[in-house]
Amino acid sequence: MTRTIKTSVCIIGSGPAGLLLSQLLANAGIDTVVLDRKDRAYIEGRIRAGVLEQGTVQALEEAGAAERLHREGLPHDGFELAFDGDRHRIDLAGLTGKTVMVYGQTEMTKDLFDKRTAEGQQFFFNVDDVVPTDLKSDQPSVHFTHDGAKIVVECDYIAGCDGFHGVSRQAIPADVLKTFERVYPFGWLGILVEKPPLAHELIYANHERGFALASMRSNTRSRYYIQCDVNDDVAQWSDDRFWEEFATRLGPETAANLQTGPSFEKSIAPLRSFVAEPMRYGNLFLAGDSAHIVPPTGAKGLNLAAADVRILHRALVAHYKDNNDSLIDSYSETVLRRVWKVERFSWQLSTLMHQFPENSEFEKRMQRAEFDYLRSSEAASRAIAENYVGLPLD
Amino acid sequence: MTRTIKTSVCIIGSGPAGLLLSQLLANAGIDTVVLDRKDRAYIEGRIRAGVLEQGTVQALEEAGAAERLHREGLPHDGFELAFDGDRHRIDLAGLTGKTVMVYGQTEMTKDLFDKRTAEGQQFFFNVDDVVPTDLKSDQPSVHFTHDGAKIVVECDYIAGCDGFHGVSRQAIPADVLKTFERVYPFGWLGILVEKPPLAHELIYANHERGFALASMRSNTRSRYYIQCDVNDDVAQWSDDRFWEEFATRLGPETAANLQTGPSFEKSIAPLRSFVAEPMRYGNLFLAGDSAHIVPPTGAKGLNLAAADVRILHRALVAHYKDNNDSLIDSYSETVLRRVWKVERFSWQLSTLMHQFPENSEFEKRMQRAEFDYLRSSEAASRAIAENYVGLPLD
Repeated sequence: MTRTIKTSVCIIGSGPAGLLLSQLLANAGIDTVVLDRKDRAYIEGRIRAGVLEQGTVQALEEAGAAERLHREGLPHDGFELAFDGDRHRIDLAGLTGKTVMVYGQTEMTKDLFDKRTAEGQQFFFNVDDVVPTDLKSDQPSVHFTHDGAKIVVECDYIAGCDGFHGVSRQAIPADVLKTFERVYPFGWLGILVEKPPLAHELIYANHERGFALASMRSNTRSRYYIQCDVNDDVAQWSDDRFWEEFATRLGPETAANLQTGPSFEKSIAPLRSFVAEPMRYGNLFLAGDSAHIVPPTGAKGLNLAAADVRILHRALVAHYKDNNDSLIDSYSETVLRRVWKVERFSWQLSTLMHQFPENSEFEKRMQRAEFDYLRSSEAASRAIAENYVGLPLD
Repeated sequence: MTRTIKTSVCIIGSGPAGLLLSQLLANAGIDTVVLDRKDRAYIEGRIRAGVLEQGTVQALEEAGAAERLHREGLPHDGFELAFDGDRHRIDLAGLTGKTVMVYGQTEMTKDLFDKRTAEGQQFFFNVDDVVPTDLKSDQPSVHFTHDGAKIVVECDYIAGCDGFHGVSRQAIPADVLKTFERVYPFGWLGILVEKPPLAHELIYANHERGFALASMRSNTRSRYYIQCDVNDDVAQWSDDRFWEEFATRLGPETAANLQTGPSFEKSIAPLRSFVAEPMRYGNLFLAGDSAHIVPPTGAKGLNLAAADVRILHRALVAHYKDNNDSLIDSYSETVLRRVWKVERFSWQLSTLMHQFPENSEFEKRMQRAEFDYLRSSEAASRAIAENYVGLPLD
């Protein structure tokens, strides 16, 4: 037996993009159904990004889910780039008048789940066999199974917020979809440790042994990364080995304040740049990782997803409230214009700050020259800063 | 029989770098001897760069060789980047308060030759077997043959201004010299034509068929380039074929004002990035192309040579006038810091504006995204502009 549910927007994926979209639409009185292949505990447990652009914070404020964020988040006025021990601070506030907020994706997801749940949002977790259909018709639908029952959500629009491995992108015919990809020849080994961060601001370091990043989740919890072989086994990286390598790459001066301790999370992630075009097919819209991946350097992934959702929310509100479909029609073009710029920045910062095995001596010197140029040029530093705090939506 | 000549600074190479150095030193009362493997007519006949940074113009003013330059040169307040027909003007004057001057290297060389000759400079042309020796001693010398006679110039210092293929760099022992190189997988086919330029300002264009550059030497003489296979024979490129390809790459709108005509110079040049370190060995100093090559995109080669010479001139004046060798001791480090930044800019602009056969679809989109980002960002445009008008000497 098949159960049929009607809604305005069916949101596939209950990560931060799907939750934020659901909340923004709910605030505008637009009904959604949200489904996910996993459950809330699993989604909240994923350790991901931790730096929010001002625009992402604004979106959470508009969503009404920014109270704890403002209480617990750490506003950052700048960050540092380091190159073989030399450091250059990017003064975000001074260069752009804007700041960023350190607040874990995990926490943001919890806040949105809490609010959606309190407001009675209809969720389906642990669903299987998700199939978006009739995308080109006026009444698309999403079929799936849940607790052994077959369910069909009939809707006006489908929002594909189900990440890189989700079904939404794959529902776009292969002859329509065009993809672009760059896989980086290394990974990031990241750890979480219950120790105060070694510096108040983030430090991105390029050292001849590879990239390192000193980041944090709070004043008592640090998030540290090093570039590693993507095929390494986490088991090869004892905490001791990690700390030694991390300290070496930061250099003795920067590492002087490092407080080591037992890690309670340790994982290796690949680095990838990926874009799928278009981001709309009929009445299916892609948003977030379902359409694009950025390497984590610069912390753009979550923020890019939030920007997609803001643009999609604006378009859907124009449709439902003003009977105006122009923003829906321009969604893919508008959102991709920004996506490519953010891809460019993430690629540029990744290219600048990592050791690439294939780099010639000339290319290594180009990295160093770019760092030296940044140190000497307010314009070049401002260009980095304006990307880091977040480009405008349009 | 060997003739011995004494001077303060022996300058190997009578191109713009050597001539400018000779003139600046002469103005400070410091004696030089200048020698070259070619003669004046050959050197003046070489068609090279045509855009002078403000600092290069200042150096020519200081040299007292800027009168005709100010009469005949074309001050430019900006230039344009084009991408598949879309254009973005870099407003040099608005973004930096500085401008550049269109004036051929040929003309600048003539002016300096005229002045040096009028002032009785000792030149040796068509010399052979040039050997700089005793570089580490207090009395280095340069041996060569001229008109069948053996000549030795005994001096305090040797300035190696003899270009990429000169002997100066090769006089530095191999275990001291470190070189860095990038050879680009294409060349530039350039023509000179006696027709007014199609636009007042330079236009650098990236088109799917390759790079094109609309430049000029004067209000009646145009200099146009297209990216080509570096192994092409000039004979393969009739004027008609050139015009058709050039117009296609600029696009119909930009090419509308193109006036074609018979070319009177046509040649293919490779594109290379090259740096040699150090730029000082004992009492030998390298300046200009003897130490570094940049690809021509952005017109930095001549300007970089002029900046080297200005820094070297300052150091030599401090030695002879103030008995202070600190600038001599820091010459290589000071000059290379700037060299690498200029190499970075020339590499960046070349990478942005050409078609690279090895580029993936993702990398092609990164080029386009950088262009789109430049169009939207004053900071990024300013960074381009400040490099184009010339970075500070220090």
